[in-house]
Amino acid sequence: MPDYIHETEFEVRDYECDIQGIVNNAVYQQYLEHARHKFLLAAGLNFYELHEQNIDPVVYRAEIDYKYPLKSGDSFVCKLNYKQKGHVRIIFYQDIYRKTDGKLILKAEITAVVLKNGKPVLPVIFTDAFKKYEKTADIK
Amino acid sequence: MPDYIHETEFEVRDYECDIQGIVNNAVYQQYLEHARHKFLLAAGLNFYELHEQNIDPVVYRAEIDYKYPLKSGDSFVCKLNYKQKGHVRIIFYQDIYRKTDGKLILKAEITAVVLKNGKPVLPVIFTDAFKKYEKTADIK
Amino acid sequence: MPDYIHETEFEVRDYECDIQGIVNNAVYQQYLEHARHKFLLAAGLNFYELHEQNIDPVVYRAEIDYKYPLKSGDSFVCKLNYKQKGHVRIIFYQDIYRKTDGKLILKAEITAVVLKNGKPVLPVIFTDAFKKYEKTADIK
Amino acid sequence: MPDYIHETEFEVRDYECDIQGIVNNAVYQQYLEHARHKFLLAAGLNFYELHEQNIDPVVYRAEIDYKYPLKSGDSFVCKLNYKQKGHVRIIFYQDIYRKTDGKLILKAEITAVVLKNGKPVLPVIFTDAFKKYEKTADIK
Repeated sequence: MPDYIHETEFEVRDYECDIQGIVNNAVYQQYLEHARHKFLLAAGLNFYELHEQNIDPVVYRAEIDYKYPLKSGDSFVCKLNYKQKGHVRIIFYQDIYRKTDGKLILKAEITAVVLKNGKPVLPVIFTDAFKKYEKTADIK
Repeated sequence: MPDYIHETEFEVRDYECDIQGIVNNAVYQQYLEHARHKFLLAAGLNFYELHEQNIDPVVYRAEIDYKYPLKSGDSFVCKLNYKQKGHVRIIFYQDIYRKTDGKLILKAEITAVVLKNGKPVLPVIFTDAFKKYEKTADIK
Repeated sequence: MPDYIHETEFEVRDYECDIQGIVNNAVYQQYLEHARHKFLLAAGLNFYELHEQNIDPVVYRAEIDYKYPLKSGDSFVCKLNYKQKGHVRIIFYQDIYRKTDGKLILKAEITAVVLKNGKPVLPVIFTDAFKKYEKTADIK
Repeated sequence: MPDYIHETEFEVRDYECDIQGIVNNAVYQQYLEHARHKFLLAAGLNFYELHEQNIDPVVYRAEIDYKYPLKSGDSFVCKLNYKQKGHVRIIFYQDIYRKTDGKLILKAEITAVVLKNGKPVLPVIFTDAFKKYEKTADIK
């Protein structure tokens, strides 16, 4: 696993917790999506503007290991790296750690495909945007 | 893969769709959770009452393959089966199909662990409740 | 208050409940939106197709009285009527009742404005679609 | 209207936007709730710990005026004040402003009631916690 190249900080909001008093399992996918979009933005790619150009990154596969639950009041950080796989897939490695003690909360591998006018491609604006991360990211 | 043993019907609500005009990827985990809870209820297990007894099924791992997006107006069915794995894990196989044409939308394997007073066990009320499904479910 | 002209049935999903074990107050606005969109659909107006034509109903003001909380396992019905106000506003009266005993859960007045290319108007397709409800709805 | 006594900063997350490309109207209630809970915390009151003591603030009435929509990428601040009304009600005045230009996005009056063991009271820990705000807040 390569070093992380991007971090997004969060804190749990009470409405994200369910009857069990812990963050609902679906909410983590919202956290992961927000962290990926913040990374894209840092790389110069705006999700909304991409959509306006008919370029839509979509989630193709999600593998999520829930290690420990987040609770009301917790602060946490979502750390990210990625790897290009084949011609059109990007695998995002996204791990969530609790801020107070660094405890590992969740590990995820999210495979995304970029659709341009509905067809899977990896547009040049993506490969260009990602160039600055190539040294640290695990791109083959 | 065994036959399905439970089905839950849904329709897409517009607030579940995002900027791309399709159901947001996190929302599918909400659908899957609701379908599991409906299955538990059909088996005689009430998620909320279990929690009141300090018995909490939690998601341990999620593997989700997104095959085709749901859109505003779509009706769909979430079909389910499960398998016990080891002493304390239950793997739910959950597939979503569009109602109009039976198109496969999503395949998921959700591994759950039941916590009783915070410790992983498979309580007797679970094994009892699941007995009626043993012929059709793939229980070892 | 005129009679209701449309009803949408729901059941509480566990992920909609929060730490307090009751449906989170924001979720009711999602229920109300879904019920309005179902009414529009029954009237022949598809929210998504309207958006594709740059016709966007938006919420202008919400007044919501929370009478009694919904809990895990509750079934309920959202009943609706509306009134046109002035040239461009539509006020939706939306009340939620628990199914088992008819208990009033919530009363809401949601004022919507329809934007066409960003400007408030009440398009002819709306006034046409609503005509069949004029006898029962309280339209001036 | 008195001066604001508390501010919470946010940024729009893309999953909060709907088909219209703007923040869904129900999501604002989530923002408002989070801002109230942050204020309570600043006043020394932890929503989750209160619940553990059977003290539950609940929303009794919401009045929300939607002035201008938030979009993908927007940063905003939710400013708050409150007023005690009668013996058991607290009215929170909550206004949302866009960060870049101070544009008013939303005005809300959220009336809350605190339930202790299910009965409406204003517990001493609330009146004590709020004392430090009495000079600036509009308490009668």
